[in-house]
Amino acid sequence: MTRCVAIIGGGVIGGGWAARFLLNGWDVRVYDPASQAKRKVAEVIDNARLSLPAVYDVPFGPEGKLIFAPTMEKAVEGVAWVQESVPEVLDLKHTVLRDIQKTAPADAIVASSTSGFTPTQLREGARAPENIIVAHPFNPVYLLPVVEVVGAGAQAVLDRAGDVLSSIGMKPVVIRKEIDAHVADRLLEAVWREALWLVNDDVATTQEIDDIIRYGFGLRWAQMGLFETYRLAGGEEGMAHFIRQFGPALEWPWTKLMDVPELTDELIEKIASQSDAQSGAPGIRELERIRDQNLIGILRALKDRHWGAGELLAQHDERLREFTSERVQRLKETANAPLRMLEFDILPAWIDYNGHMTEFRYLQVFGDTSDRLLQYIGVDRDYLASGHSYYTAETHIQHVDEAKLGQRLYSTTQLLHVDPKRLHVFHRIHRCDDDRLVASAEQMLLHVDSRAGKVCAATGDVFARLSKLNTQHADLERPAKAGRFVGQKQS
Amino acid sequence: MTRCVAIIGGGVIGGGWAARFLLNGWDVRVYDPASQAKRKVAEVIDNARLSLPAVYDVPFGPEGKLIFAPTMEKAVEGVAWVQESVPEVLDLKHTVLRDIQKTAPADAIVASSTSGFTPTQLREGARAPENIIVAHPFNPVYLLPVVEVVGAGAQAVLDRAGDVLSSIGMKPVVIRKEIDAHVADRLLEAVWREALWLVNDDVATTQEIDDIIRYGFGLRWAQMGLFETYRLAGGEEGMAHFIRQFGPALEWPWTKLMDVPELTDELIEKIASQSDAQSGAPGIRELERIRDQNLIGILRALKDRHWGAGELLAQHDERLREFTSERVQRLKETANAPLRMLEFDILPAWIDYNGHMTEFRYLQVFGDTSDRLLQYIGVDRDYLASGHSYYTAETHIQHVDEAKLGQRLYSTTQLLHVDPKRLHVFHRIHRCDDDRLVASAEQMLLHVDSRAGKVCAATGDVFARLSKLNTQHADLERPAKAGRFVGQKQS
Repeated sequence: MTRCVAIIGGGVIGGGWAARFLLNGWDVRVYDPASQAKRKVAEVIDNARLSLPAVYDVPFGPEGKLIFAPTMEKAVEGVAWVQESVPEVLDLKHTVLRDIQKTAPADAIVASSTSGFTPTQLREGARAPENIIVAHPFNPVYLLPVVEVVGAGAQAVLDRAGDVLSSIGMKPVVIRKEIDAHVADRLLEAVWREALWLVNDDVATTQEIDDIIRYGFGLRWAQMGLFETYRLAGGEEGMAHFIRQFGPALEWPWTKLMDVPELTDELIEKIASQSDAQSGAPGIRELERIRDQNLIGILRALKDRHWGAGELLAQHDERLREFTSERVQRLKETANAPLRMLEFDILPAWIDYNGHMTEFRYLQVFGDTSDRLLQYIGVDRDYLASGHSYYTAETHIQHVDEAKLGQRLYSTTQLLHVDPKRLHVFHRIHRCDDDRLVASAEQMLLHVDSRAGKVCAATGDVFARLSKLNTQHADLERPAKAGRFVGQKQS
Repeated sequence: MTRCVAIIGGGVIGGGWAARFLLNGWDVRVYDPASQAKRKVAEVIDNARLSLPAVYDVPFGPEGKLIFAPTMEKAVEGVAWVQESVPEVLDLKHTVLRDIQKTAPADAIVASSTSGFTPTQLREGARAPENIIVAHPFNPVYLLPVVEVVGAGAQAVLDRAGDVLSSIGMKPVVIRKEIDAHVADRLLEAVWREALWLVNDDVATTQEIDDIIRYGFGLRWAQMGLFETYRLAGGEEGMAHFIRQFGPALEWPWTKLMDVPELTDELIEKIASQSDAQSGAPGIRELERIRDQNLIGILRALKDRHWGAGELLAQHDERLREFTSERVQRLKETANAPLRMLEFDILPAWIDYNGHMTEFRYLQVFGDTSDRLLQYIGVDRDYLASGHSYYTAETHIQHVDEAKLGQRLYSTTQLLHVDPKRLHVFHRIHRCDDDRLVASAEQMLLHVDSRAGKVCAATGDVFARLSKLNTQHADLERPAKAGRFVGQKQS
């Protein structure tokens, strides 16, 4: 098959299709007579180039060739696939589909991105009606995988279409019975209409409705759908029990949608058995753990990006820090030994595929330990605002023992050398239960003028406190692991 | 305020509330006369102990005390908060709420988890009606942050409730106008009823509906809600344009919900201006980039867990590998330079108080680089399952230049020495735009028998591939920064 596609109608959806095909090596010909179409499609493709490769661990092969065709004929000549994404007006779609099939190869798949029209409606008066199907994607088309594929009576075309869509990384779901708006937009349209009422009636603002979704059930739906989620809500008693329990609510005015199917035993049995087949062997407890692990991953991804539910988690971190900081402060005062700094539990998300604390978490703890030392000697907000700070120049981490989930650890700091420009420290992480050394980090920090980006001398209180601490540590035994290079034999 | 809460009604919801409060240091008293309640609540709390700490980077303080109270009186005595989560039967709720307020302190907040009833309905015949509010959470309560808070006419109580809910890491959204099913369940119930029709009419199975959600709009809704998502779909023309464009569809039978608000200019203006206020200053292009970065994070989190849309990505990796393996192989083998490994953007959460990439993120990238190398030489799931792995023994990081938000970086690997037990590597991080070196890491990895916890020799394909790569790297110039100790003078 020629890996060549015609995109009829640019814009957000057409551009997304163009990007998917292009990045997956297809030649792409875009046809859209609108004056801004070329710029808009190019912008969508630029977005896709930045983002789609980021979800894969294998690089894409070379991109296909992108052409903006001057006419419909030039666009569809000899292509294997035509994707139509013109506005949702049936007469317009009929005209465009007729024009496409005048020139496109006899066996070219002609797929419409329509949100609402059925294949039967689209095929009216077509030259090769069986080649016309619905392939309805979701914005951003270059990142969201699902496509609704509808086209009763054209099984061979549907099979071919499914293969092509899978080959460009998508998830085709074939809808066997055609109805207005297929499946997704029936759900979305119901939500949209309900939401319009909520805003219209001043029950909630757009912001409040969005927050209720993205801090709530939206997080669940990124990984399990409506039925599997409710299966878990039903708990041990199973899906049929859940439906019966919430059956009465169907009669209540919980939405404007009051036209409901009758909850017969037959319907309950149908849903329950489909749900059993769907969720398969895992028990409720196992599904719960899968769900929770997915939610942890999603929430942490949002936290890394300071967004939505993830931003809330970062704020709670601050709250937790306030609760525990006082305890840490008290720990510091005991000395004639390395300074005791932090005490912490190993979190589940800190564990790697070997079952141990992930290596970068060690540096997170050592970095926090350095930060605590800096706070202790007076490098505070004001000091940073005055344009001075300490930057880490190098770090040598040596692992001695394993650290595992549920263990409680503490860190210590020993000063090795202090001068106005340099702060040479040796941190250790120990287990709380038996004081065993788990890992050490030798660090060199430099005092900098952060605006000039240059090393400069520390002065005043900060240097005085540092020098005092250095004097206290002068008699401590120098760590055997300090001053070594990577791979150096144990002495 | 006493940090002591009574949970009335165990089960999935009550148990989730108990876990949230308990982990955040509150004493918790559970009352539920059902025979299985204690076991079920304990199971939910166990799930929460495994998962909630995993989304934070600061450990919780000590847990509160958990008690299963023998009577309602013992449960609610002296508490600051009572959370009622009994079945959705109004008479039952009235009885329980009356019993609670007989013994609970006069100023205790009595919050109901009800999905559907309004505060006015719940307060009928209550002793202190103004203390009764709705606090409707979402399953799993210990992970999903949003709570709908409803309780007109009790502003002081609502304020206090909001503070408590925030203090246990939740996101209270106050619904100012009470209606049946509040806001979330109006949306959910509309979807549920629509979905029941789809299954009833054999349009789609539960599995197909769930897939359409979790491979599609569910991913979007984990990070932006309905309105902000449509704002982006509308593109440059803005929200009012989007609503007008899809206005006609409101009259079409795209859902069973045919009772729609009239789309007056006033309603369009209201939605558009709320949406403007919500999405704030960022333009469409910037919001698109935020959305795409969020989706990348969510998709990668699911990929790490081999689930849903993430599993599809892993499958496409395999497809890409087939297409590109020859080219990549060639790239890597012709390269007379260190192996190019990862390419990545610096994310907002990676920035520290100095405005630079936080130091532990460097080790995250270096660790990921080592992982990629291990995958490349065949250390895969099967290899790990066979009881062998590579553990990092030591790491020496040297910082050369600064890395800042928005920069794109890549990492490389050079082998310094390979023998059956040891893998000595030198990683570098460079800026993509000018290839400048930002940091390096010299690492020693040891091949281990992970069950015995001992170093052992690598054999077979893994060692063969490693040796081959080592031969290719034998002629590369040895990095000047290798083999140095911390603080060593530049030569």
